[in-house]
Amino acid sequence: MNRKVMKFGGSSLETIEKMQAIATKIEKEALQGTQIVVVVSAMGKTTNQLISLAKQASQSPSKRELDALLSTGEQVSISLLSMMLQDHGFKAIGLTGFQAGIKTSGIHTNNRIDDIDVSHILKYLEDQHIVVVAGFQGQNAAGDITTLGRGGSDTTAIALAAKLDCPCDIYTDVTGIYGVDPRLVPNAKQLKMISVEEMKEMAFLGAKVMEPRSIDIAQHYGVIVKVAHAHIDSEGTLIVKEDMMEHRPITGCSVLEKIVLVNIQHLPASMTLIANLFVTLANEGINIDMISQTQGSDGFVTLAFTASADDLDNLESVLRYLTHDEPQVIIQLDKNVSKVSVVGSGMRSQSGVAAKLFQLFADHEIAYKLITTSEISISYTMSKEHTNHAVQVIAQAFDL
Amino acid sequence: MNRKVMKFGGSSLETIEKMQAIATKIEKEALQGTQIVVVVSAMGKTTNQLISLAKQASQSPSKRELDALLSTGEQVSISLLSMMLQDHGFKAIGLTGFQAGIKTSGIHTNNRIDDIDVSHILKYLEDQHIVVVAGFQGQNAAGDITTLGRGGSDTTAIALAAKLDCPCDIYTDVTGIYGVDPRLVPNAKQLKMISVEEMKEMAFLGAKVMEPRSIDIAQHYGVIVKVAHAHIDSEGTLIVKEDMMEHRPITGCSVLEKIVLVNIQHLPASMTLIANLFVTLANEGINIDMISQTQGSDGFVTLAFTASADDLDNLESVLRYLTHDEPQVIIQLDKNVSKVSVVGSGMRSQSGVAAKLFQLFADHEIAYKLITTSEISISYTMSKEHTNHAVQVIAQAFDL
Repeated sequence: MNRKVMKFGGSSLETIEKMQAIATKIEKEALQGTQIVVVVSAMGKTTNQLISLAKQASQSPSKRELDALLSTGEQVSISLLSMMLQDHGFKAIGLTGFQAGIKTSGIHTNNRIDDIDVSHILKYLEDQHIVVVAGFQGQNAAGDITTLGRGGSDTTAIALAAKLDCPCDIYTDVTGIYGVDPRLVPNAKQLKMISVEEMKEMAFLGAKVMEPRSIDIAQHYGVIVKVAHAHIDSEGTLIVKEDMMEHRPITGCSVLEKIVLVNIQHLPASMTLIANLFVTLANEGINIDMISQTQGSDGFVTLAFTASADDLDNLESVLRYLTHDEPQVIIQLDKNVSKVSVVGSGMRSQSGVAAKLFQLFADHEIAYKLITTSEISISYTMSKEHTNHAVQVIAQAFDL
Repeated sequence: MNRKVMKFGGSSLETIEKMQAIATKIEKEALQGTQIVVVVSAMGKTTNQLISLAKQASQSPSKRELDALLSTGEQVSISLLSMMLQDHGFKAIGLTGFQAGIKTSGIHTNNRIDDIDVSHILKYLEDQHIVVVAGFQGQNAAGDITTLGRGGSDTTAIALAAKLDCPCDIYTDVTGIYGVDPRLVPNAKQLKMISVEEMKEMAFLGAKVMEPRSIDIAQHYGVIVKVAHAHIDSEGTLIVKEDMMEHRPITGCSVLEKIVLVNIQHLPASMTLIANLFVTLANEGINIDMISQTQGSDGFVTLAFTASADDLDNLESVLRYLTHDEPQVIIQLDKNVSKVSVVGSGMRSQSGVAAKLFQLFADHEIAYKLITTSEISISYTMSKEHTNHAVQVIAQAFDL
């Protein structure tokens, strides 16, 4: 028996009309005899409207209550879509997170899935139902309704596919994954396939199609994921295991905006001091991304790192403490930077990618600041005004 | 330990501002050291909006899915109100129907409460929480979300009070129960007390403050119910057991509009035929209210009864069958009627109420059609144009 999880995001469920189109899309799959589990987000901007209600009700809404509030959004979607599928002549049943057996733990509004008891879902599948599951939500051991945070519905869908041992289609508002943002490079090419490892690296480095955590699950359980457009028929992009791929040196190039580059000069070369600084930053919930340190000859070091621009206020207060303790340091905060990353699992086996990039930037006079590398990626921070130029140059050179 | 259930309907939760006023009202009670369980409906017109969404999604929405959809309304209310109560400095927790242990059975959209496992609620009460429960909903044995139909939130509140062995305040958009509709009799008097039996009779006979089913539970479990205004401080009306009351001959007078009076002449005096007619009406879901039959000398009877005007279409099709089988019958359908009922448990012991009513109607030339009586009420159908006059005359004569 063929089986498939189909996930639809909020923008593809914005109106009753769009939802009807989704019901028709599901019908086509069901008519091929496939067992189907549908995972849905809340309709359109519903989640934002509920958050705004909560903010009107309380300046700092309880996260437990916020979860119960937000989970109503997907519950509305499963009910309406199930009704529509029944009108199409199918047996269909809507299940909330807890009814679908999704067991979670962690902090409210940011739970993780511990396990899924799929017995309820399997029973309905065997009884020829299309099962419509509320994404983004579950239930913790105390019986509270929980939500999964960013990318939660993708996570629900891929975790269900893992437990049900089937592939997962993620339907969204793009026709597939591009090696480079088509808004920056108009003739950018859509990828037919991308390895799960590259996809994860690209997601971390700023590609917005999927959250890294859901790709993690796909990688761990070997779920084959297809990303395609919800309303436009397209081949989409398959996210597959590494060994199914031909190696390209570079698969994609992504841009992360909204970062801030911190440069600290005249810092004593004390490992304790530097460790304390990063511990303090971590305690404030500030995620540090690229780190670079250079040693001077005078017992001082220069330390540079990037962080999310969202953390700017917290960051500045930590740095004020530092200046208080070490008045000789010189701190520069640069908000006018982006991070351009080049990703490709082929980098592992094919040397020369870094060399080619440095040459490209030199030829086109694109100045960069920090550089970091991982096994399959290289990232450069540069002034925002260079970003688009850099991406276009890279896309052309590597035929993205 | 004092304990109380406080129930707030949708119109008192219409906006965030009104909900904040409710939070303040609950705070006052909580500060007196009372253990409080709050039962809430969906905000304002939410339920109607959800029903309209369902109708857009499907011409005949599945009732199971409709229940899951509608239940989100109260879930939003419990979340927001709990957040507000926490802002007031209280421990507060919102519980959906299934989290509150409300077990139901029956037809979706019209379930009845079988039992409530209050252990979860008691745990939170003992831990000094204000417990905010979603009214109108529960969970059936299959784990589906269910709703209770009309008057469902009152039913939840009174059933919880029964299980928690405490009184129940029903906060609504009236300051209490009136013996007669204040829109018809401007100087109508609000009752300080009414017996549960009289309240039930009045609810059946058209008083709209509470649904008969919830009053049934109050009567069966001896729950003391207070009806008061959600936003105006008022003494309200206590609904108490019969033996706590002084007897008045008449407690109230209520009007039921939207009825239709059927008069069938020349019907053969056959018990089988008449029984078949009423069985057919029942099978079509048509509720028959007042029934009157008079015997002629010619082997024919005249049968008259009233039904809800909502059932008019079904009613007419059943009567068409009758004319087909018994072509000699003469059927008259009168839609221009109301039913005026006079209720009072004192009627049992104090005779003369009926006599006084007939005298009043004769004095004021108010023509009536059908009359039926119960142990504690008398009802008259009359042309709509007489209704207001009749109510005013009765209110004056019996000092309502």
